[in-house]
Amino acid sequence: MTKTAAIIGGGVIGGGWAARFLLNGWDVRVFDPDPEAERKIGEVLDNARRSLPGLSDVPLPAEGALSFHDDMADAVQGATWVQESVPERLDLKLKVYKGLQEACDPDAIIGSSTSGFKPSELQEGALRPEQIVVTHPFNPVYLLPLIELVPTDKNPQQMIERARELLTSVGFFPLHVKKEIDAHIADRFLEAVWREALWLVKDGIATTEEIDEAIRMGFGIRWAQMGLFETYRVAGGEAGMRHFMAQFGPALKWPWTKLMDVPEFTDELVDLIADQSDAQSGMHSIRELERIRDNNLVGMMRALKAQNYGAGAVLNQHDALLKPGALPSLDQADLSQPILTLSRAVPLDWTDYNGHMNEAKYLEAFAAATDRFMEIIGCDMEYIASGGSYFTAENHIRYIDEVHAGAKIDVRTQMLLGQGKKLHVFHSMYEGDKLLATGESFLLHVSLETRRPSPPSPKIEAAMARIAEAQAGLPYPEGAGAAIRKPS
Amino acid sequence: MTKTAAIIGGGVIGGGWAARFLLNGWDVRVFDPDPEAERKIGEVLDNARRSLPGLSDVPLPAEGALSFHDDMADAVQGATWVQESVPERLDLKLKVYKGLQEACDPDAIIGSSTSGFKPSELQEGALRPEQIVVTHPFNPVYLLPLIELVPTDKNPQQMIERARELLTSVGFFPLHVKKEIDAHIADRFLEAVWREALWLVKDGIATTEEIDEAIRMGFGIRWAQMGLFETYRVAGGEAGMRHFMAQFGPALKWPWTKLMDVPEFTDELVDLIADQSDAQSGMHSIRELERIRDNNLVGMMRALKAQNYGAGAVLNQHDALLKPGALPSLDQADLSQPILTLSRAVPLDWTDYNGHMNEAKYLEAFAAATDRFMEIIGCDMEYIASGGSYFTAENHIRYIDEVHAGAKIDVRTQMLLGQGKKLHVFHSMYEGDKLLATGESFLLHVSLETRRPSPPSPKIEAAMARIAEAQAGLPYPEGAGAAIRKPS
Repeated sequence: MTKTAAIIGGGVIGGGWAARFLLNGWDVRVFDPDPEAERKIGEVLDNARRSLPGLSDVPLPAEGALSFHDDMADAVQGATWVQESVPERLDLKLKVYKGLQEACDPDAIIGSSTSGFKPSELQEGALRPEQIVVTHPFNPVYLLPLIELVPTDKNPQQMIERARELLTSVGFFPLHVKKEIDAHIADRFLEAVWREALWLVKDGIATTEEIDEAIRMGFGIRWAQMGLFETYRVAGGEAGMRHFMAQFGPALKWPWTKLMDVPEFTDELVDLIADQSDAQSGMHSIRELERIRDNNLVGMMRALKAQNYGAGAVLNQHDALLKPGALPSLDQADLSQPILTLSRAVPLDWTDYNGHMNEAKYLEAFAAATDRFMEIIGCDMEYIASGGSYFTAENHIRYIDEVHAGAKIDVRTQMLLGQGKKLHVFHSMYEGDKLLATGESFLLHVSLETRRPSPPSPKIEAAMARIAEAQAGLPYPEGAGAAIRKPS
Repeated sequence: MTKTAAIIGGGVIGGGWAARFLLNGWDVRVFDPDPEAERKIGEVLDNARRSLPGLSDVPLPAEGALSFHDDMADAVQGATWVQESVPERLDLKLKVYKGLQEACDPDAIIGSSTSGFKPSELQEGALRPEQIVVTHPFNPVYLLPLIELVPTDKNPQQMIERARELLTSVGFFPLHVKKEIDAHIADRFLEAVWREALWLVKDGIATTEEIDEAIRMGFGIRWAQMGLFETYRVAGGEAGMRHFMAQFGPALKWPWTKLMDVPEFTDELVDLIADQSDAQSGMHSIRELERIRDNNLVGMMRALKAQNYGAGAVLNQHDALLKPGALPSLDQADLSQPILTLSRAVPLDWTDYNGHMNEAKYLEAFAAATDRFMEIIGCDMEYIASGGSYFTAENHIRYIDEVHAGAKIDVRTQMLLGQGKKLHVFHSMYEGDKLLATGESFLLHVSLETRRPSPPSPKIEAAMARIAEAQAGLPYPEGAGAAIRKPS
């Protein structure tokens, strides 16, 4: 059944939440008195639609329905999740919860996007404090996995578990913060760095651009995948974390930071920083910077996905959650027709200077379809680990139409031959009914030990025989067995 | 002429410097009294050889010669660059500089890897203070671009410029820190975060693993590409940096951090952190973690390279520095033979679960060769911006042999037809003399406005005619014009 989320407070953060839920198949009901809310959320949604679906290697559920409501009580009707992202004023938040709790389902989870307040402060005086929890996201909310999930003793264990499950189901990584603390965890680090950075700019040590380079050219890339402690564990080498701490610990006493002094937010300091920031990034509009950022994030997160590490492992786990419904197994498929072996959105990083999907990425899609076909006949990761696999001997790709980032593509696969060590398949790629390309592949089963051709397992032979019999009535596809013509 | 670097002090940092220089064609002479130095540097070099060359899309120069020297004065003979990475004790460093300056070229640059000392401290009492500068790297030094280049007033402008050039020539991003300060820039941020993290662990708010997740699932990925200020500029939205600061500034006064209090480094705290780190990462050895880290970094940096942003833009600039010598132009090539259109190392992220280069990446290489062939005939970025390009209609790839990460591959291209809007090329991929694969491509020249076939420019027509005439004597390649055989 379609679930419903209520978004209380739009803007960049509320819009990000809306996009996460919508693109994962939830209906979303928005309340925000700002007359610009619909436009603002629409802009966030545009960004999310171009970047999020392609992060998955399987299709997301069909998008839910988005509606805007003038009345908060109306917006929360039927909501399983209520996300509050109103401005950071405690009196305002408490007033909002009062209104919410009079109207919403007592079993709904009310999550707050607050970075500044502890959950116990939000629960103070509430009608049902056990229903309120901090779920603090990070911008862009539609791409970054982290949610700080901060409960109090008042939240039942079973409610916290349900919050984790629901957040995970829309692709988030909920980090359960066990003890509440001002600013939760991540923002304490951001705060420390921000404060130090302000001093460096104020004292003329470095400009905003130089500070950004000092971050992104070095430890920023490290932290994108391993964080602080795992990075230092590696740096410590074989001697381990104790050795690292023995070396690094004493440095803490050096007077390196001015962190507890707060620089005065004078007009001069604001001007200095704003002017430096203009010089650094002013050649791009904010819209352009958002798209650059999202392109970068998608590319890096997909790189981590290929390594199944950090945020990339989260993406793979989300795919696994979605996959059962996405692609048929041997027993589910109508074997008399070409079998659905790929269904996905074209990711942002698959396009090239011509503005369309790069020719090599068509083969990446066909290769994924071949992998799926192998899985269907029983050549899965477990089988490969046991020492057998298929190696591709030949590929022939015909490009028939262009396709762009975000488009939903399907690949259907006809087996032309599957006998002994030979496997010959013909893939057709579609956007809707439009044929985009065909990919013909000839593979040989090999022993991964000898790297030489070898017969597959009886189970694979049997699966191929079953498909061969079922597809025997299909016409030989137009374009199969063709060559690139020799110029006359 | 081959340049020489002297590495004073091996270990992980000195080894990383050695790898950077060696793999960029410098000779490297090492002095380190540690009897384990050769093994340690060898291990760093192994990691560097599997990860660094594939980051470039053009071949690096042939590796330089590595030698170990028992005598520091011997090690610095002929060195253009002397890199000091001895332990962080000022008396030791000053002693080392005394020895160095008695033996080295007065024009050599002496860079110090110090994170703790200011350059003025290192220059104190030196024979030639103007020769000494801080060049502070980040681990892994063979992959991360950042070098904090910190001079004093004693260093002549021309020497600073030369240091920037030399660092850039081996792929670094030298960040010129204009005013010296304790810990330079990046380590001040690391220090602030480390200190805060220790408190969070000590107070039982979060474990080392939870802290790492709080970093890498959220702001870590952001900082890998935009840093602090550009990220906040985007978050501020159209209202700009001033608006962002007006919102965020006041939060600074909240008591969120305990940063200037230093937690006592008791045995209990060290045990707590070491035990948590074991629970988090102990399933991998340090060697495994190094390789996981490098796989992640290479994948993410290549993703940024495709977007030409941050560390990825640095990689592209380094390629551009190397490229002139790497691939021939129309006038440089021997047009009577297949033309060298690709020469590169197989990057770490091109291999798959079968342990070899993935089938789709063969086409990525052939597509890059096609792009280069297009450049050679005049269809370059400027031409494409003017509205014309080639679209691929068909590709036929035959896989002949396996190839693994780190292998150096070349592609040579024969033009089978280049007339009017048609372009038909045949690529052969080699590792040394071994044929790995062939890729046959048929392309059509198109107008990027109508997306329909159109004639190319007269300049392109003329270049194709020149190649056609020169290659007329070549035999029609075996395997061209072939089809995947229809099963009988």
